[in-house]
Amino acid sequence: MRGPAPVSPPVPPANVLPAHVLPVRVYYEDTDAGGIVYHANYLRFMERGRTEMLRVVGHDLAAQRQAQGINWTVSRLAIRYLKPARLDEALEVVTQVAALRGASVDLVQQVRRADGGGTGALLSDATLTLACMGADGRPVRLPADVRAALAVAPARGGA
Amino acid sequence: MRGPAPVSPPVPPANVLPAHVLPVRVYYEDTDAGGIVYHANYLRFMERGRTEMLRVVGHDLAAQRQAQGINWTVSRLAIRYLKPARLDEALEVVTQVAALRGASVDLVQQVRRADGGGTGALLSDATLTLACMGADGRPVRLPADVRAALAVAPARGGA
Amino acid sequence: MRGPAPVSPPVPPANVLPAHVLPVRVYYEDTDAGGIVYHANYLRFMERGRTEMLRVVGHDLAAQRQAQGINWTVSRLAIRYLKPARLDEALEVVTQVAALRGASVDLVQQVRRADGGGTGALLSDATLTLACMGADGRPVRLPADVRAALAVAPARGGA
Amino acid sequence: MRGPAPVSPPVPPANVLPAHVLPVRVYYEDTDAGGIVYHANYLRFMERGRTEMLRVVGHDLAAQRQAQGINWTVSRLAIRYLKPARLDEALEVVTQVAALRGASVDLVQQVRRADGGGTGALLSDATLTLACMGADGRPVRLPADVRAALAVAPARGGA
Repeated sequence: MRGPAPVSPPVPPANVLPAHVLPVRVYYEDTDAGGIVYHANYLRFMERGRTEMLRVVGHDLAAQRQAQGINWTVSRLAIRYLKPARLDEALEVVTQVAALRGASVDLVQQVRRADGGGTGALLSDATLTLACMGADGRPVRLPADVRAALAVAPARGGA
Repeated sequence: MRGPAPVSPPVPPANVLPAHVLPVRVYYEDTDAGGIVYHANYLRFMERGRTEMLRVVGHDLAAQRQAQGINWTVSRLAIRYLKPARLDEALEVVTQVAALRGASVDLVQQVRRADGGGTGALLSDATLTLACMGADGRPVRLPADVRAALAVAPARGGA
Repeated sequence: MRGPAPVSPPVPPANVLPAHVLPVRVYYEDTDAGGIVYHANYLRFMERGRTEMLRVVGHDLAAQRQAQGINWTVSRLAIRYLKPARLDEALEVVTQVAALRGASVDLVQQVRRADGGGTGALLSDATLTLACMGADGRPVRLPADVRAALAVAPARGGA
Repeated sequence: MRGPAPVSPPVPPANVLPAHVLPVRVYYEDTDAGGIVYHANYLRFMERGRTEMLRVVGHDLAAQRQAQGINWTVSRLAIRYLKPARLDEALEVVTQVAALRGASVDLVQQVRRADGGGTGALLSDATLTLACMGADGRPVRLPADVRAALAVAPARGGA
């Protein structure tokens, strides 16, 4: 029995959006009997981070769903758990676009201790592919406005 | 910003336990507004699968925790989402040991449509490393009985 | 600011189905940093219990949804937490119909330590109303087959 | 089989803190296949609301736990679900102290559509008792500082 092929490291685009930072607080709901945040709940934190990143670039998730029947789904994900997070800790989810594909986006996301700027101690990091699915459950091309928003125009004129 | 290094494919031991199969049912609690099982919830299904696999080989999670203060934690995980699972579907979690290390175990886990034998349509598969942590939060060697139970004696000398 | 009116105690029907008992195991996913099952997760256990109760009486949740667009939703719930449940404990969810209304069912549900028969130590009990909602989000009458299945015909001659 | 006795309506103290309002966003993690927020997840939203209310009055949950081994646990709860919340909606959790007891606090909590002031459309409301538990799992008296913070001094001299 074989598991998933290792996630291929995405190629970062020439110019990317600055990393998006979302503050997150740890509540009892997030923890487990080991006294730390339950491993699957980092994925919930990361969903919040990338949703707010999309909102910042003008992508309204709900409007898109209603207008175009589009759902975003995670098609693969690799995550490392480096240090535990504990009850009541202030964290930050750092999200950055790593690569744009036809019908998907590769993201790098990190969960860090909060320092106000997304540079606190690294607790967990992940690489994941977010696919754009139509109402029929098949991949569709990224909406043009999302693509444009995520691909920051290259710093023309030399750079 | 870089994500986790790709998860290195574990080397399977010469002889392994047969795959463990746990039936799981999909309830509303597991699904999301996309009408399918929420991606992080596959990790919950997989936790159930490997806990029951450990129970079958005689490893009582709770007893071990109380006697030795040991917690199992996921230290890294790579997962692919191939086909969605829907409300009320009968699934099976298939768990197999891929490699034994000093203080950790590599597992391959799959979520499949139920066919009674762990060979239904593959919905998701994962490779993950489960680390053994002492009461002080540091890695400890696998308890000898767990190690023995997970490493089925090689049958060779012919086979 | 006032909270919900106390949940009015439902009137049990003359004859009811015997209580349905579903075994449930406590995993890390269910617990919190207090070392016990997180209070909201008892509601997840109870959803499993009543779904399996409905399945036993021949009500296929998924088929009903697809054929008639019906969703069950909880419209109110009162729960007591009497004793905590801990990691790896074997529990039983006991479900019983308390009253049938036009577009809803009142249930009594309990979470108990497992003893094989639904009579172990009582950890939590709840009274809740489950409403039947049409595709448009409005209450609809209970499907006739569900009603018939849940209302066991009085067997006595006179009562 | 009988469910919990109806939750007795708490007697509000003469003077109470103004209601605390916490903004909450709905993500996929919160929803279910019915397209709405899963009923148990309102309890998660409410935990966030009351934790932040306690933080505002100077009660540091984590510090208290470490210094005194105190855990807050929900001992009973009654909740009504009036209108559904949907993916990506902006909500507010409104929390107010309803009564102070020796070893517990009664709260009224509401989930409303966000209007910036905790007065948007009411989606769900709950009355619950939060008990203070010592390290040995037994009820302990509320810490004096918490009690003082939650009980705004009665307007003595007549009122």
